[in-house]
Amino acid sequence: MIGVVAKLTIAEGKNAEFEEVGKDLMAKVKANESGTLTYQLYKSKSDPQTYIFMEEYASEDALKAHGQTDYFKAAGAKLGACLAGRPEIEYFDIVE
Amino acid sequence: MIGVVAKLTIAEGKNAEFEEVGKDLMAKVKANESGTLTYQLYKSKSDPQTYIFMEEYASEDALKAHGQTDYFKAAGAKLGACLAGRPEIEYFDIVE
Repeated sequence: MIGVVAKLTIAEGKNAEFEEVGKDLMAKVKANESGTLTYQLYKSKSDPQTYIFMEEYASEDALKAHGQTDYFKAAGAKLGACLAGRPEIEYFDIVE
Repeated sequence: MIGVVAKLTIAEGKNAEFEEVGKDLMAKVKANESGTLTYQLYKSKSDPQTYIFMEEYASEDALKAHGQTDYFKAAGAKLGACLAGRPEIEYFDIVE
């Protein structure tokens, strides 16, 4: 199992647009990706411009397949337009 | 729902001990906490001394109850002895 934490800093005034795109993306992931076990957007309690996608994948193949979907690529472009800085994406292996 | 990402940096040579305590803690959380929906230890792919606990709680009460268990307090002391620096703990609200 693979874990991903993608931290995004959103430009002032873009929060509502960002959250709408994020919610639509979550719905599409849930409907289409059996190997994506967790895909949840969260907003920081300490900084209103900071969000994470908390993600768990059954395998490297599932992670790769997620990134290759048309809806992920389309959402990525829309989310990118809301960012105030570079995303920080960290990848993890499960400990079990 | 509340999300937590607790990032821990482990001292060289302490990885095995840390992982054992972490696995025991995960088992106890799973057995005892219906309001703790995700509680998973992950190891960074880019830095072998960096780990996270990826956590999701049904409510603030569930998060508080988790922190007050005897087994969490006992594990916290053991995990603390393996650390090379201060934990970085971030708290999030779900976007849904």
